[in-house]
Amino acid sequence: MRITANRKAHFNAAHRLYRADWSDEKNSEIFGKCSNPNFHGHNYDLIVGVTGEIDPETGYLIDLKILKDIIKVEVEDYMDHKNLNLEVPEFKNLNPTVENIAVIIYNRVKAALDNRFELTITLYETPRNYVIYKGE
Amino acid sequence: MRITANRKAHFNAAHRLYRADWSDEKNSEIFGKCSNPNFHGHNYDLIVGVTGEIDPETGYLIDLKILKDIIKVEVEDYMDHKNLNLEVPEFKNLNPTVENIAVIIYNRVKAALDNRFELTITLYETPRNYVIYKGE
Amino acid sequence: MRITANRKAHFNAAHRLYRADWSDEKNSEIFGKCSNPNFHGHNYDLIVGVTGEIDPETGYLIDLKILKDIIKVEVEDYMDHKNLNLEVPEFKNLNPTVENIAVIIYNRVKAALDNRFELTITLYETPRNYVIYKGE
Amino acid sequence: MRITANRKAHFNAAHRLYRADWSDEKNSEIFGKCSNPNFHGHNYDLIVGVTGEIDPETGYLIDLKILKDIIKVEVEDYMDHKNLNLEVPEFKNLNPTVENIAVIIYNRVKAALDNRFELTITLYETPRNYVIYKGE
Amino acid sequence: MRITANRKAHFNAAHRLYRADWSDEKNSEIFGKCSNPNFHGHNYDLIVGVTGEIDPETGYLIDLKILKDIIKVEVEDYMDHKNLNLEVPEFKNLNPTVENIAVIIYNRVKAALDNRFELTITLYETPRNYVIYKGE
Amino acid sequence: MRITANRKAHFNAAHRLYRADWSDEKNSEIFGKCSNPNFHGHNYDLIVGVTGEIDPETGYLIDLKILKDIIKVEVEDYMDHKNLNLEVPEFKNLNPTVENIAVIIYNRVKAALDNRFELTITLYETPRNYVIYKGE
Repeated sequence: MRITANRKAHFNAAHRLYRADWSDEKNSEIFGKCSNPNFHGHNYDLIVGVTGEIDPETGYLIDLKILKDIIKVEVEDYMDHKNLNLEVPEFKNLNPTVENIAVIIYNRVKAALDNRFELTITLYETPRNYVIYKGE
Repeated sequence: MRITANRKAHFNAAHRLYRADWSDEKNSEIFGKCSNPNFHGHNYDLIVGVTGEIDPETGYLIDLKILKDIIKVEVEDYMDHKNLNLEVPEFKNLNPTVENIAVIIYNRVKAALDNRFELTITLYETPRNYVIYKGE
Repeated sequence: MRITANRKAHFNAAHRLYRADWSDEKNSEIFGKCSNPNFHGHNYDLIVGVTGEIDPETGYLIDLKILKDIIKVEVEDYMDHKNLNLEVPEFKNLNPTVENIAVIIYNRVKAALDNRFELTITLYETPRNYVIYKGE
Repeated sequence: MRITANRKAHFNAAHRLYRADWSDEKNSEIFGKCSNPNFHGHNYDLIVGVTGEIDPETGYLIDLKILKDIIKVEVEDYMDHKNLNLEVPEFKNLNPTVENIAVIIYNRVKAALDNRFELTITLYETPRNYVIYKGE
Repeated sequence: MRITANRKAHFNAAHRLYRADWSDEKNSEIFGKCSNPNFHGHNYDLIVGVTGEIDPETGYLIDLKILKDIIKVEVEDYMDHKNLNLEVPEFKNLNPTVENIAVIIYNRVKAALDNRFELTITLYETPRNYVIYKGE
Repeated sequence: MRITANRKAHFNAAHRLYRADWSDEKNSEIFGKCSNPNFHGHNYDLIVGVTGEIDPETGYLIDLKILKDIIKVEVEDYMDHKNLNLEVPEFKNLNPTVENIAVIIYNRVKAALDNRFELTITLYETPRNYVIYKGE
């Protein structure tokens, strides 16, 4: 029996949308006020969805303590109360759009998770804007 | 990298469930108090989901300003504070159930959107009842 | 020990903002698209707050079954799936703004409630606009 | 036109995670405080998603009254205000994890539903933990 | 400058509504299915509101780490994943209605909090029923 | 008839908790990771509550268009997508805690609002932490 178990998490961060190889004018033209050089920030709400077979012995898909620890190490400790552009290495040369942040979170959680599981990352940048990424 | 970006929107409208080719008795029997000839109404909550490839240059799936403008023109300006039965042409001969409203919103947004994108419409008629339509 | 117990409820209705003693032009100028003669509508979310002393015998402020029945009779059966302007007598000559709807709900629930209780009505017209009325 | 209509419901129950064929020590080691012999409990939030073709005559996927009645009989009357381990027969020998509860709800609703519909069960054990089961 | 700072928390517990000095028939008549001898349970959502003067040096009303620690010790460690009737001493002879649970939480948090602060406890037993207690 | 009308709004911003007259060590000791020199950020959710008498002519407490415009000018245009420490003059020498941000928003909105109204500011820094300020 195949099921998806989902766990919500949360982190706060500063960022700006910006490409170093573009002029300030072009960054401002394409990304608008999201490119403010002094940064702005968000409360990111994250849903980590893990899909696989229910373990008939425990009735669990995955022990949530394991999943919570992975999310803590790979996302919360790594991104919470950080400046994504300056302090998270993956965004040194990658624009921290909500799409790209979701891809980076997917890659980090996937590498830490037993590979019998499929993974879905849902990431809210604001309560009205969110993305869903499944590694496809 | 294939991702879905979602944008929430909102409109208020009056409607009644009704087929002009049925008697009042049959409308009332099938649709109950939803067929009240004086209308009732809802706050419709809409989630427009757009699926496609992340643009490697911007890190965006789609510039949200473009998506917000399409939603504004095709849904909000078109349906907000309206009587769906009397003022929205698609419902002249089509019963404005939440299912049919989702289909009409899908068709209008799909026609305005670059056709490299897939589209998913999620429409809440109340906080407890909602539909999902993907044009299938 | 003085406590407030709150119960959420919900109803859907059509309305328009309108004064019969004003011209259509003045109604439209003051109330904008909310004055659409064909009506629009809302999902109204209601919180009924009752304040008083905890009954030391039961540990209840009020038996919720009693409160639910009052809300059902005085609000839900009376306003749900109705056209407020045409079908709810209190609005024959009273503009059904969210402020006035809250006052009418307060008056109806207060009359049905044991008078040892104070009452607070919180009424959401949309998820972003709501009023609080305490009969003062 | 293929659509999914979703209906939210709710029930409260007590449970403990426990296998009768394991020692108390092993139950406690694997399930932690969720295995408390005196039980703990949850507000379970349920979303029942039904997928199929829109009926061109009514504009409905399914008459919601039918779906509400099925949920009432098969889930609410059967599990609400119950002790899942002691009072719900399916959990006599099955650990009432949120995964297994979702499977049982799926099986009960599926058997009561016209078999032209596909079914998706989303079950929240807490606001932060939920599962999705599609009978696969 | 007087302000209220609020912190949300959460715990799960089993309980039954019950007076030991009443017969089973009377418990069942007054408390209905809430008196199920096998218990049922809830996700309790708690909002702890602390009122006082903003500290001009830090700009804080209270260091949230202090408030989180008090909530953890006095509420979460004390009530989470517990059977309120059997395992929380205050309810040995006190019916664990949501009203009485709020009073007990108030008393425990108030005793641990610097007495320059006023306290408001908001406690949700379900998403639709909640109480507010201010120690009056 | 005295009523409170509430309007929700939203802005995103970067900030750090910091006093320029303290050493970096003291800032870090008192404010922890909230004092990160590279900033972090939040989605701030704001509820502006206006209290006064219902206008018997319109049935409004206040025309919401007026209130929305005040919120737009005094809060959204002024703080959205900004770095509060560097770009909002009030925080040049005032630590941008959620308490102090609420006070500044209160002062700005109060000055723009007709003085027959009382004002309540509710400001969420995260979904779990929020403050309420009434100018007392």
